[in-house]
Amino acid sequence: MANEQIPSLESHLHSIIPDGTLPLLRQDVLPKLLHSITDVAKVLRNEATVSQVGTANAFGDDQLNVDVLTEKAIRSAIAQCPSIVTASSEEDPVERSTSPSGSAPPSGNDEVYSLAFDPLDGSSIIAPNWTVGTIIGVWNAPSAVKQHPSKQVAAILGVLGPRTTAVVALRIPGCQPTCFEVAYGSQGDLQVVRPSIRLGDAPFKTRYFAPANLRTAAENPKYMSLINHFIQEAYTLRYAGGLVPDIIHILVKGHGVYVSPVTEKSKAKLRRLYELLPIALIVECAGGLAVEPESGNTILDREVQDTDERGGLICGTKEEVELAVKTLLG
Amino acid sequence: MANEQIPSLESHLHSIIPDGTLPLLRQDVLPKLLHSITDVAKVLRNEATVSQVGTANAFGDDQLNVDVLTEKAIRSAIAQCPSIVTASSEEDPVERSTSPSGSAPPSGNDEVYSLAFDPLDGSSIIAPNWTVGTIIGVWNAPSAVKQHPSKQVAAILGVLGPRTTAVVALRIPGCQPTCFEVAYGSQGDLQVVRPSIRLGDAPFKTRYFAPANLRTAAENPKYMSLINHFIQEAYTLRYAGGLVPDIIHILVKGHGVYVSPVTEKSKAKLRRLYELLPIALIVECAGGLAVEPESGNTILDREVQDTDERGGLICGTKEEVELAVKTLLG
Repeated sequence: MANEQIPSLESHLHSIIPDGTLPLLRQDVLPKLLHSITDVAKVLRNEATVSQVGTANAFGDDQLNVDVLTEKAIRSAIAQCPSIVTASSEEDPVERSTSPSGSAPPSGNDEVYSLAFDPLDGSSIIAPNWTVGTIIGVWNAPSAVKQHPSKQVAAILGVLGPRTTAVVALRIPGCQPTCFEVAYGSQGDLQVVRPSIRLGDAPFKTRYFAPANLRTAAENPKYMSLINHFIQEAYTLRYAGGLVPDIIHILVKGHGVYVSPVTEKSKAKLRRLYELLPIALIVECAGGLAVEPESGNTILDREVQDTDERGGLICGTKEEVELAVKTLLG
Repeated sequence: MANEQIPSLESHLHSIIPDGTLPLLRQDVLPKLLHSITDVAKVLRNEATVSQVGTANAFGDDQLNVDVLTEKAIRSAIAQCPSIVTASSEEDPVERSTSPSGSAPPSGNDEVYSLAFDPLDGSSIIAPNWTVGTIIGVWNAPSAVKQHPSKQVAAILGVLGPRTTAVVALRIPGCQPTCFEVAYGSQGDLQVVRPSIRLGDAPFKTRYFAPANLRTAAENPKYMSLINHFIQEAYTLRYAGGLVPDIIHILVKGHGVYVSPVTEKSKAKLRRLYELLPIALIVECAGGLAVEPESGNTILDREVQDTDERGGLICGTKEEVELAVKTLLG
């Protein structure tokens, strides 16, 4: 393989973010957050912390241990970025100043960020050693709460599998939205292995579907009808039951639809701030759609009022999302 | 975590294989094969070989590269075990002598082995960085072909995910069948993290199903009826579409059923020698069932006549397998 064809992170970020635009995001925030994904991967690879997860003789706090350590890995990157002034996470869902001294809030002209992240998404599939991940939303604002989602200028999906990879989406005012994939070498070095991720256009070679909460189809004839459509039309099933592996599958294959409907009996589970908004930015920057199953409205239409807000999700290839919405709401 | 509670591979193998019984298997073959799984993991983690798998600008032979390198990792372990006298693999499906000089065949009294393995199972999910694996069957015979499956005394499922883990099944004449899980430390050291894997008994907290070839339900009303049963009875869907992640999920969760039916239009795809027989040994040693969907007969009933033989599979929790067979054949 000719390595000189693979751009470094630095040169790739330079090519997509012009000089003078959010310099701290390009030079500091994105590189440091992306490097922290390798620290999350190391936590998962460390036998002392996770090798007994899910085993009969595991101590009760093993799972917690992994959550705490991955949270710490991301918090450590935050501590190295002075421009990240507030943060909250799925593990610690209270947005707080990142300054230990509680220093004065920045002035309106500063380039400041708020981070909203889920350090380890996919707890139910850690024990069987399936691919899990980290989800990060980067807000160009002093807070991510009660903030228009257009302020979320970047999102990162860290993919912790046989390799460590990450997908980055950027939607910076004045720049073309973009989505790219990086991979981590054995020395933790970063390469941009796919400079542009775009969901494909019809006709599709293989069509994929990922039906979350499938059991709710028993009480929801419209969801059952959608499932039958997928089967009759020979879609290929791939469903890990973890948001990160299920979304990365769509992005890498260039096609797919993820459906997590919300019904009376099955309440919304996905956290808007830590899961839905970053995923929606990534899918949209890759040319797809991400909508609320209850309304068909774009996920990124509504600001978050509270860090605990939850919702359902339909996302992926535009045509498939539109068909799913029509079937579920029609 | 108290590491002294976790047995080493050596002491665990000593506790389950009595002195005088297949000493080379215990001292040489199993430890070396298990250590080769870390070499397979390293191949996958190496950015130069796989980081561009599935990318638009990948060279055509990238995928091949990974297959060749993982095959080489297992072949290297074989070369270190003089008692492994023949081997064949999904990549190189011709059973050959492992002796470079074509030395004389061993006498009938020697402790000799034949290996049948799939170095990298799950090619369709490597690009999205999902968990994949290695499958190995260890036959206590000079050949695995035209040999009664009772000669397959051991099987290994290497699981290449965020961590590297492996499940080992042993069914040695005169010993209790057993199934256990090992995990690899960051230094490649091995720990027996779960000394006994057993599928659970009813009542089940959560019931899982993994429906392979789901699109064939469109033409197979009995399969559709089985799928409807799973949905109506609120089973949880988990389907990676890779035999290793789908089977390890069942083993670690202690419940599940994997169904890959065979129909007129959808031919059998799983290789009997490299996939079905090792998986069947593992599932049986964990207290489950593994049967042929066409007949309901146990997979391990029939010897392999040819390395290319293929079949379908229903395996997992006994009650679930029996219900699936009844539904599909009834």
